[in-house]
Amino acid sequence: MLLDAGNLRAMAIGCSILGAGGGGDTSVGLLASLQAVEEFGPVRVVDLDELDDDALVMPCGGIGAPLIWIEKIDRGDEIPRIIPIVERIHGKPVAALMSAEIGGSNGLSPVVWCARSGRPLVDADGMGRAFPEVPQVTMEVAGVSPNPAVMTDERGNVIIFDGIDGHWMERMERAAAVEFGGQAYSSEYQMTVAQAKTATARGTVSLAIRIGEAVLAAPRDPVASLVETLGATVLIEGKIVDVERRITGGFVRGSAAIEGLGPQAGRILRLEIQNENLIALEDGEVRASVPDIITVCDTQTATAIHTERLRYGQRVTVIAFACDPIWRTPAGLELAGPRAFGYDLDYVPVEAIWRGGTSAPA
Amino acid sequence: MLLDAGNLRAMAIGCSILGAGGGGDTSVGLLASLQAVEEFGPVRVVDLDELDDDALVMPCGGIGAPLIWIEKIDRGDEIPRIIPIVERIHGKPVAALMSAEIGGSNGLSPVVWCARSGRPLVDADGMGRAFPEVPQVTMEVAGVSPNPAVMTDERGNVIIFDGIDGHWMERMERAAAVEFGGQAYSSEYQMTVAQAKTATARGTVSLAIRIGEAVLAAPRDPVASLVETLGATVLIEGKIVDVERRITGGFVRGSAAIEGLGPQAGRILRLEIQNENLIALEDGEVRASVPDIITVCDTQTATAIHTERLRYGQRVTVIAFACDPIWRTPAGLELAGPRAFGYDLDYVPVEAIWRGGTSAPA
Repeated sequence: MLLDAGNLRAMAIGCSILGAGGGGDTSVGLLASLQAVEEFGPVRVVDLDELDDDALVMPCGGIGAPLIWIEKIDRGDEIPRIIPIVERIHGKPVAALMSAEIGGSNGLSPVVWCARSGRPLVDADGMGRAFPEVPQVTMEVAGVSPNPAVMTDERGNVIIFDGIDGHWMERMERAAAVEFGGQAYSSEYQMTVAQAKTATARGTVSLAIRIGEAVLAAPRDPVASLVETLGATVLIEGKIVDVERRITGGFVRGSAAIEGLGPQAGRILRLEIQNENLIALEDGEVRASVPDIITVCDTQTATAIHTERLRYGQRVTVIAFACDPIWRTPAGLELAGPRAFGYDLDYVPVEAIWRGGTSAPA
Repeated sequence: MLLDAGNLRAMAIGCSILGAGGGGDTSVGLLASLQAVEEFGPVRVVDLDELDDDALVMPCGGIGAPLIWIEKIDRGDEIPRIIPIVERIHGKPVAALMSAEIGGSNGLSPVVWCARSGRPLVDADGMGRAFPEVPQVTMEVAGVSPNPAVMTDERGNVIIFDGIDGHWMERMERAAAVEFGGQAYSSEYQMTVAQAKTATARGTVSLAIRIGEAVLAAPRDPVASLVETLGATVLIEGKIVDVERRITGGFVRGSAAIEGLGPQAGRILRLEIQNENLIALEDGEVRASVPDIITVCDTQTATAIHTERLRYGQRVTVIAFACDPIWRTPAGLELAGPRAFGYDLDYVPVEAIWRGGTSAPA
């Protein structure tokens, strides 16, 4: 499969839906990737099965505040600049790049870096969604080392971290990103193809495109098409009646309330937010929770509305769908389950909560 | 020359005097270095002329807040741990370590690292005194690259910085040191012996020992012995009558006033402080200024009193003496002259101000 002007728009829609309200606005990433494929040619998407088992896969992404990135965009040569450094450290060529995070802008940006460096993009990523912290990746769950991490900025500064665990990597890279002006670029958890086969969320680039194509192919009822493609549950269809949002500890935290409309009148769904939509509550009961993906969509267009863009009065449909299976393992839930975000509740898969279908929980 | 229990006490006194009021308390560094030479044997001090011109010299030191280091001391293996990393990057062995900063605790700590790693210590350093910031070293003036910088902490975390200029190195290392708990260890500006011959303050380890020995050898009038050894100027002998000190932007800033005693009664000398003693003023006139070294000594013992220990009522003798000649070049003054610290005044060498001797300025 090739990524070009024909499918990048669909991919952007899909990355946005997979972002669970986070991962950053995809509009800048779409413009940058469209320009990159025009200038350098289309980007080849490869399945891990097409690569040699001992070939090197390099995950990559932006780190920092997505809001800053909208104004302080990258030059495009940041990640290409660190490829030879990663190759020198590992002593072999980087066979393909991979999105560390398919959700939001970080799902799209690697298209630019692949186009510029002539590398293919792996049809997989490190989350299958968006998460706020560096070690919240499937590779960490699978026991892949985050070292060496290579970080850079638009000025050409390079930092290499080594001997650092995931928790410290988050602290150090966050501090460096702040010094670099709130946004930087990095690669962690480089691995062989053999490792990547079990340590990544696979097929997520294709999935993002499929999601976007489903939305674009059904202009009359894109939400229904989206729900069917994802096997998603509709948590509520209604109107945003309350948004509370504050920035603490470098994260957007808050909540939003959605009141049902039409046949769902009288219902109120509340979303708990920390960058992403983490928990959906109704009458004090959990209707869906992290690591499953909760996305707020515009009811008319099925466009994902990022948490920083939620506003009173928006007509929205809130959907939830299953995360990558790796997140449902004990190690996955320890890293990214409700308790990892400070909620004292047990995770129940969204399908188990909504056994009865999409109109009411079981 | 060998460093052992016989001369380390003298060296500690000298490092403290050379610190210009900064560089951190030497008492912990002295205890650590005494223990290290007892455990691993004495440390050889080598002149650059004794080494091959293309051998690698590795400057090293602590970075962070000296006050924190007094409680959160190093394990001792931090710098030894990064030696093989520096060797791998440069592709040759580290022939000798060098204090990045002879002033204060950073002048002594390399003794521990040399003892543990079996490396000799170069009889030179990167300042000839103490300065607060990473790039305020003679190597920066001489055009040596700070890259790669290798930083570590007591946990074994390692960071390598590359492609970063001196200004950014200061920002990034400072941010990382803060994340590491306020104190870390690093090496920048590695160079060949040939480079080091013109890019360092030479002979400063011997000088520190000579200073300490002069003080210890004259228990009845150690200040006079110190002044003679250094060719220093006595700015005032008196009593501290005012200390103003505040912590802003990560630095100790403030001022201290010293009132003359005995034949100097009626005089008031004011010191401007930013970690180190930077400017000495009397009646609005500059009596000495950075990069020359201004040190406040206890009048009875000639012990240097660090800026964070200045207190009302202390009987002190304030001395000033010439910095390493490299700081008096235009590039040196740009990096560490009065204007580099925000004082809008031209530098005049202390000997030029005090042509008439030590009793009154010319």
